[in-house]
Amino acid sequence: MTQPTLLAITSGEPAGIGPDLCNRLAWQESGQAFVVLADRDVLQQRAARLGLNIRWHDYDPHQCSLLPPGHLRVLHVPAPRPVQAGQLDPDNSPYVLDLLVRAMQGCQAGEFSGMVTLPVHKGVINDAGIPFTGHTEFLAEKLHAGQVVMMLAGGGMRVALATTHLPLRQVANAITPELLESALQIIQRDLVRRFGIAMPRILVAGLNPHAGEGGYLGDEEIRIMIPVLDRLRTQGMHVSPPLPADTLFTPQRLEQCDCVLAMYHDQGLPVLKYASFGRGVNVTLGLPIIRTSVDHGTALELAGSGKAEAGSLLEAIQVAKDMARHDGLAPSWP
Amino acid sequence: MTQPTLLAITSGEPAGIGPDLCNRLAWQESGQAFVVLADRDVLQQRAARLGLNIRWHDYDPHQCSLLPPGHLRVLHVPAPRPVQAGQLDPDNSPYVLDLLVRAMQGCQAGEFSGMVTLPVHKGVINDAGIPFTGHTEFLAEKLHAGQVVMMLAGGGMRVALATTHLPLRQVANAITPELLESALQIIQRDLVRRFGIAMPRILVAGLNPHAGEGGYLGDEEIRIMIPVLDRLRTQGMHVSPPLPADTLFTPQRLEQCDCVLAMYHDQGLPVLKYASFGRGVNVTLGLPIIRTSVDHGTALELAGSGKAEAGSLLEAIQVAKDMARHDGLAPSWP
Repeated sequence: MTQPTLLAITSGEPAGIGPDLCNRLAWQESGQAFVVLADRDVLQQRAARLGLNIRWHDYDPHQCSLLPPGHLRVLHVPAPRPVQAGQLDPDNSPYVLDLLVRAMQGCQAGEFSGMVTLPVHKGVINDAGIPFTGHTEFLAEKLHAGQVVMMLAGGGMRVALATTHLPLRQVANAITPELLESALQIIQRDLVRRFGIAMPRILVAGLNPHAGEGGYLGDEEIRIMIPVLDRLRTQGMHVSPPLPADTLFTPQRLEQCDCVLAMYHDQGLPVLKYASFGRGVNVTLGLPIIRTSVDHGTALELAGSGKAEAGSLLEAIQVAKDMARHDGLAPSWP
Repeated sequence: MTQPTLLAITSGEPAGIGPDLCNRLAWQESGQAFVVLADRDVLQQRAARLGLNIRWHDYDPHQCSLLPPGHLRVLHVPAPRPVQAGQLDPDNSPYVLDLLVRAMQGCQAGEFSGMVTLPVHKGVINDAGIPFTGHTEFLAEKLHAGQVVMMLAGGGMRVALATTHLPLRQVANAITPELLESALQIIQRDLVRRFGIAMPRILVAGLNPHAGEGGYLGDEEIRIMIPVLDRLRTQGMHVSPPLPADTLFTPQRLEQCDCVLAMYHDQGLPVLKYASFGRGVNVTLGLPIIRTSVDHGTALELAGSGKAEAGSLLEAIQVAKDMARHDGLAPSWP
């Protein structure tokens, strides 16, 4: 039997709720098929503050047995400076990125079956003089992935975005035939290979209100979207024509699709986050490795308070496990 | 005692589901404090097709007693041409507008306490050579209302829109300080006088994803929105700073507000329509009269089938009644 592989969980910004949530996993996540990447002292101090009784195990790549409840496996990455909950420190920014690089390299090498990321704080990383726009972009660049697609799952739906963190006034020009086509091909490929959906059905939201209403409310549907979607359909993909976003997210429609492709951030995410009640999972499609993430931020004000909810993290772990199973990366784990 | 006033219900496009739903009211709406504006023959033919047994009453402004279940009060407006369910006919477009004008005039004169509109078909009205972009714009123009605000209610939330039926690429430039300020003042005024909310709390969505993230993802929040919101706050209004739209629609946040102001159509309506399950109500704020509407279209393919759902219409009637009560227009009705 091959050595089963673990999920790598990066604990993210040490002053935020990442360490709290990682500690919670010792008691909340059954099966324990993961390793937490963090500074060991940060985890232990936060556990003491939260009153969590945890048995610690240093990560050993040759010793990956399942751990019982109350135990936590830690891959120690040292933080250069002591951490205070809620207090950002730019000097620890390189450490936050070290966690990501270590997890990513382990995924590439087959040491880890995938990575689950807890939030980082973009502002403090930039304050440290390191250009950084987000996990997704960081991983795509390091992995030479070219275009990737952000997809959120939760509340009984999956919503992928054609554009992500763009000012609204730049969105219309960013929707090119090339972008749309490659986004749909990435979604299609990853839903097949990593979600086990043989023939993904994708509903595509129009860019404009009412999907342009036949050209009266914008012509991008006619000029750009419909030709691409028609062509992909003749190639055998199950993609809808551009649909009005406001009537797309109905139970009947969602039941008949595997993924919605929204054209931009605020067209797709408010409804997903409403429906998923804080348990949404962010999945990066188009990477050579498996990566999921919580859909919340660092919540500095909650760090160490015991009030942070682990729902999104537990879902992100579950989705990464499922993806690894479909990808053939975790044959023997629960 | 003053003569109690009725709600006027315009039956809309005669080939669509409007007549079906009006007929359903005879049995579904208790209290019967309304009159349906329609061609009597159209209603009767549709009722026969649906197998609905209805006792018809011609509207008499001097005889407005409550009607029992199974009865329907009709203000007959003749359609020039016979109507076939599902078949649009441009020759009937002037009739559709006659319904609106009659209801509007009755509201102005105090004959009706408000109007509830069923959907019209913009395309066929335009095909008839009559410029028409929607109920809201039509009424605003006829009533010399200047700026009005479209607000949808349902699913435990109210969502107003700063811009409505604009191509997405025109949205950013449309968000001016003047527009934002007057939209908020209209919302505030109408929530006070017609919804009985003494001190409305309004959450405002940022234009850009993450509300611009401090200027990294667009600067309209900093340049335009924050100054207006700060000024209104010093004048005593309860308005939030620009908030990220994707995390705005959480139960905790919604509980603490009376209305969300979204900057554009697809930022606010997908989540509202998802949450309201086809029972959303469209309210026009800023008119001198009360007007609510269903939030669905003509559904030509369902006309005469008996499959159209009356949920949104029943809610639209209820909201209009509540508004009339707060406005002091319907002192004695249930």
